[in-house]
Amino acid sequence: MANLDPSREFRLIETIRPLCGDSSDRWEKGIGDDCAVRKVSADPLLLTADTMVENVHFRLDLMSLREVGFKAIAGSVSDVYAMGGTAESIAINLIFPKTEQAEELIEELYRGIHEAVTLFGTPIIGGDMTSGPCWIIAVTVLGDAGSTILYRSGAKPGDSIWVTGTPGLSGLGLDLLLSGGRTSAEYIDSEAVRAHIRPVPRFGSVTWIQQNPQITSMIDISDGVGKELLTIAAESRVGATITLPDSLCVRLDQNRDTTTGIRRAHELFLGGGEDYELLFTASPDFIPRLNGVKCTRIGTITQNENSYFTDADGRSVPLSGGWDHL
Amino acid sequence: MANLDPSREFRLIETIRPLCGDSSDRWEKGIGDDCAVRKVSADPLLLTADTMVENVHFRLDLMSLREVGFKAIAGSVSDVYAMGGTAESIAINLIFPKTEQAEELIEELYRGIHEAVTLFGTPIIGGDMTSGPCWIIAVTVLGDAGSTILYRSGAKPGDSIWVTGTPGLSGLGLDLLLSGGRTSAEYIDSEAVRAHIRPVPRFGSVTWIQQNPQITSMIDISDGVGKELLTIAAESRVGATITLPDSLCVRLDQNRDTTTGIRRAHELFLGGGEDYELLFTASPDFIPRLNGVKCTRIGTITQNENSYFTDADGRSVPLSGGWDHL
Repeated sequence: MANLDPSREFRLIETIRPLCGDSSDRWEKGIGDDCAVRKVSADPLLLTADTMVENVHFRLDLMSLREVGFKAIAGSVSDVYAMGGTAESIAINLIFPKTEQAEELIEELYRGIHEAVTLFGTPIIGGDMTSGPCWIIAVTVLGDAGSTILYRSGAKPGDSIWVTGTPGLSGLGLDLLLSGGRTSAEYIDSEAVRAHIRPVPRFGSVTWIQQNPQITSMIDISDGVGKELLTIAAESRVGATITLPDSLCVRLDQNRDTTTGIRRAHELFLGGGEDYELLFTASPDFIPRLNGVKCTRIGTITQNENSYFTDADGRSVPLSGGWDHL
Repeated sequence: MANLDPSREFRLIETIRPLCGDSSDRWEKGIGDDCAVRKVSADPLLLTADTMVENVHFRLDLMSLREVGFKAIAGSVSDVYAMGGTAESIAINLIFPKTEQAEELIEELYRGIHEAVTLFGTPIIGGDMTSGPCWIIAVTVLGDAGSTILYRSGAKPGDSIWVTGTPGLSGLGLDLLLSGGRTSAEYIDSEAVRAHIRPVPRFGSVTWIQQNPQITSMIDISDGVGKELLTIAAESRVGATITLPDSLCVRLDQNRDTTTGIRRAHELFLGGGEDYELLFTASPDFIPRLNGVKCTRIGTITQNENSYFTDADGRSVPLSGGWDHL
C-alpha cells in the first residue's frame, strides 16, 4: 500500500480485516504477507478480473460507496457462475481519492463488500490499496470449477438461446437514475433501480448446470445481450436469430410513456448491460428446470455465421454490436 | 471490457494476445472466456496483487509506457519471490485514458509487459480493460509455492538481518529524474535510473531459499527498508537494530555533492522504496551463498520489540516509518 503513513495504514487494515470474511478453510494465509497462500485443491481453478471506475461505471451522486462495493463484487463473481463454477475467494486492488476522510470512506466501501462476501460466501484474501485520482475497484476472483465447465464456444446450430431474468432492467434503472436522480428513480420503478445498484448474479448456476446437461454454452450479461450473443457466436463459429419476447418487452417498456430519457425496450435489452443475468444455449430437448429462476427463450443458433435481431415490426436487423441504427 | 466499440475491442485483444506469453502448460484456457481455467496442481498456490497509478507511482515524462508495463509486472512478481515461490501467471486490470491513440498506447504498454513476461517466464492469463481518468495497471500474480514458504513472521531474536543489492538505489534514481529530467539523470547515474525505471526482482530466490534453510523470514523492499523491517518485526513480535553499512552508504551518497534535490543516503535506504530487492532474516550460522547476488548484513533481531536505526554519528534513532526527524 502506498500513500498513507504506516500507522494510518496499519489501523485501516485492522478495520478492514473483519469485513473480509473467513478464508481459513481454503487458505493457509489470507491478508497480511507478501502473498496469500492457498491450500492444495483437487479441483481446477477459475480466475476472472473486473474493474469499476468512478464516473465511467458509477457516479457517487447516484450510488453510495457501500452500494459500489457490493456491485463490484457481484459483477465479478458473476463471471465464475457463468462458467458453472463456485466463486471461492477475491483479491481487490483499490484506488481511492486521498482526503482527510479516506479511512471512513474506504470502510463504507468495505461494508458493501462485506455484504457481498457474506451473501456469496466468497472471502477477500488479498489485494492492494493506493491513492489515485478517483475511486477504482479492480477485482480478481478465484473460483472452483464445477464438474462441467461451460465455455462460450459450445453453441451448436439448432440450439435454443435463453436468458435468465429480465436483461435490460439494469439499463432501465440507470436511465431512470440519470433522468430524475435517485429519489425520483426509486419512486418510479424501484425494481429497475435495484437491478442497477444492487444486482444479484445467479449464484445457483452450478446446480442448474449439473441438472441440465443439455446446456451447451453460457456467458454472463455484463455488456448487453447483443454483444454477449455475438461473443458466443464468434467463439462457437455459428450465428443466431433472436427476438425480444413480449414478456420481457412489456417490463422494459412500461416507464417510457411517463418519463423522458428512457431507451427503447430493444435498446435496453441488446445494449443495456450490467444485468449479470445469464445468456446460454441449450440443445432443443432442454426443458428449463432452474430452481424457480425465470428463464426465457429468445431465439435459435444457426449454421449461417451472421446474427440477426427481429424487431417488433418483424424486420430482421443484423446484430453488429452497435444498436443506434435500429 | 467497456468503452471501446466491439470491433475495436476485438482487434485490440488480437494485438495483445501474442504479447501475453504461452500459458498452455498450466492453463486449459487463458484469455477469451468469462474465466481462465487452470489445470489441477499439486503445489499450494500463492496470490498477490499490486497497483501502479499514473502521477502517483510513475510520470510519463520520466518513463515510457513500455517501461511502465515492465515495471508493473516486475514489482508484482517480486512479492512471490519474497515468499520463496515461482511466479506462474498474471491477470491485469488495465485502466487507460480514452484517446484516439488508445490502441497504439496500450500496445506500447503491452510491449513492456511482454518483455517482463518473457524474462520472468510468467504469462498473462486474463484481465480486464476499461477507460478511466489516467493510466492504472492493477496486477494480480499467481505463484507456485516452493518447498519452503517464507513468511514475514519467522524472525527470531539473535537472527541477523540482510538485504540483497543496494536498497535506496531506485529512490536515488527517482531523485535524479525529478531533479534534472530523464536525459540529465541517465548521464549522471544510469545505474540508479535503471534501478528505478527497470527494476529486476530476485527471481532466483526459490533456489537460494532451498539452499539456505537458515533463512527465517523474508519480505520484498517495495516501500523502503524501514517500513519493511517494521513489518517483519511486528509480524514476528520482535525488534531490530540496524545500521547503513559503508558499502551501501557510499553508493547512495556519491551524487549528493554535484546534484541538488537528492535525499541523504539513510533516507533513501530507509524510505526510498521500489527497489524490489529482498530483506530477510537468518539464524547466526547463515553464510550467504546466493549464486553471486550481493548480500549485505545490516543488523540484528532483538527480543525487545522496539526497533532502532544507528546513524553515521552513532546515535540510535527509533524506527517509526517516518524518517523526517532523522
